Amino acid sequence: MAKITIAEFQKLMTEELPWAAEAGMRLQAIEYGKATMVLPFAGNMLRPGGTVSGPSMMALADGTMYAVVLSMIGHVKLAVTTNFNINFLRKPLPGDLIAEGGIIKLGKRLGVIEVTLFSEHGVSREPVAHATGTYSIPPASNGANNGAVK
Amino acid sequence: MAKITIAEFQKLMTEELPWAAEAGMRLQAIEYGKATMVLPFAGNMLRPGGTVSGPSMMALADGTMYAVVLSMIGHVKLAVTTNFNINFLRKPLPGDLIAEGGIIKLGKRLGVIEVTLFSEHGVSREPVAHATGTYSIPPASNGANNGAVK
Amino acid sequence: MAKITIAEFQKLMTEELPWAAEAGMRLQAIEYGKATMVLPFAGNMLRPGGTVSGPSMMALADGTMYAVVLSMIGHVKLAVTTNFNINFLRKPLPGDLIAEGGIIKLGKRLGVIEVTLFSEHGVSREPVAHATGTYSIPPASNGANNGAVK
Amino acid sequence: MAKITIAEFQKLMTEELPWAAEAGMRLQAIEYGKATMVLPFAGNMLRPGGTVSGPSMMALADGTMYAVVLSMIGHVKLAVTTNFNINFLRKPLPGDLIAEGGIIKLGKRLGVIEVTLFSEHGVSREPVAHATGTYSIPPASNGANNGAVK
Repeated sequence: MAKITIAEFQKLMTEELPWAAEAGMRLQAIEYGKATMVLPFAGNMLRPGGTVSGPSMMALADGTMYAVVLSMIGHVKLAVTTNFNINFLRKPLPGDLIAEGGIIKLGKRLGVIEVTLFSEHGVSREPVAHATGTYSIPPASNGANNGAVK
Repeated sequence: MAKITIAEFQKLMTEELPWAAEAGMRLQAIEYGKATMVLPFAGNMLRPGGTVSGPSMMALADGTMYAVVLSMIGHVKLAVTTNFNINFLRKPLPGDLIAEGGIIKLGKRLGVIEVTLFSEHGVSREPVAHATGTYSIPPASNGANNGAVK
Repeated sequence: MAKITIAEFQKLMTEELPWAAEAGMRLQAIEYGKATMVLPFAGNMLRPGGTVSGPSMMALADGTMYAVVLSMIGHVKLAVTTNFNINFLRKPLPGDLIAEGGIIKLGKRLGVIEVTLFSEHGVSREPVAHATGTYSIPPASNGANNGAVK
Repeated sequence: MAKITIAEFQKLMTEELPWAAEAGMRLQAIEYGKATMVLPFAGNMLRPGGTVSGPSMMALADGTMYAVVLSMIGHVKLAVTTNFNINFLRKPLPGDLIAEGGIIKLGKRLGVIEVTLFSEHGVSREPVAHATGTYSIPPASNGANNGAVK
């Protein structure tokens, strides 16, 4: 079971990730080690022609990685991205973007997460981008060790 | 000599990269194969505590990569990021972020670019993030082959 | 159905990837868009203490990516890696390494592949490394367009 | 000044990186935060046609990163690669490969290094590959803290 609820994450988004909250990013589902986020089409990071920009997709992927990490260690404020790698696969269709994230490995000091981004409008559900990232976890806050979280 | 001027790039930013223009991103210098961009502190992508968010830094790095590519092939609209990798090194100080980008290799179909991000407030000038990225260049538009495309 | 057989791939390995053949790498299974390879423990890339080295794992992951690409476009000799990213997750146990690769996206010019490496000796089947890579596909040889090239 | 000599590194290569020693990899120069390694052409990781394979270049880049890390923290045996990203730029010419590595950032727990690979035979000195990697540094062994190294 996730160590943070959707409501708790949405709240911390307005405090810690204001740009995400402003863009209308929304946590849709969360489990222990998994998270789904949505970036609605009517955000403020569009490109002309209606397609979502690369940096919007990076922001969505990174926000989803954060949700995955917190789902496992609870609300730890000093967990930060150390490495982020993304492959852009297809031009997204004009519509909502869905990001599905899952933990690859949560260690004592680092967590590695994978996120796939989908266009909601796709006839077939094909990914528009795929990212992996590493989060650094502050000492003595990894839920896998001692649950010392807020 | 760069195949696009600062004024031309700033103009296309408002049309093609509205989120960057909105955040106040500014091209400070451009040469053939090099570009320097600034993300002013009073942007809309801040974190509480005054530090710049990861996605802001990704957006700045990606915008700088785009400037580097266009400096070499002129204003090509279909040049897009295919791969982006970033290492976050230090928490940025509250202040402007400077991004210095340079071409690693421009080929017929792909360009590989490197960008280093610095905090302007640093006593010493140490990087806060380092990124490399690959841009896909549409056929018959690579300046190295047949001249810039406007 | 895969556009190349296990026997065909093993043969081309001795010709095109002699280091892989020398290390005893073996294609275990192949389907259209998926491939499984094995790096036996008694290879020549060991570290003291019996654990497999990072570069061995990189070689195994890259060989697997190549198999995935060829499974979809047939035996194309000029398909080469352009970008490779790997996260090392756990120290591998002394034993065979299994690499499971699958296509993320095959486009006209680039293919993006994902590979997960497992220790065969693990009590639980946990990944020891996770990689994504991009292969550049020579023009007019992408099976998705016009049929496999032999 | 480097915290390890060329002779010390060559010795530990035969013990800790036997594949590198076997391929004839050689540390050419080392300073605090910088290292240059050579992969001679007559190694055992060639491709038909005389060009060096991708995995050989990955191995060379990773070995160079290790040398850079040890140049700053001395001979620490548990420093290991956690993330490695490489862009392949050009097909290498048949000849020695030179790898020039330098530290991007050495922190308490992680070190980020950059390596550029060159073909020695090039008329002009153009890179054939560019890599960045992250090394995990065991606690209490970072030379920047307390020099607790062997």
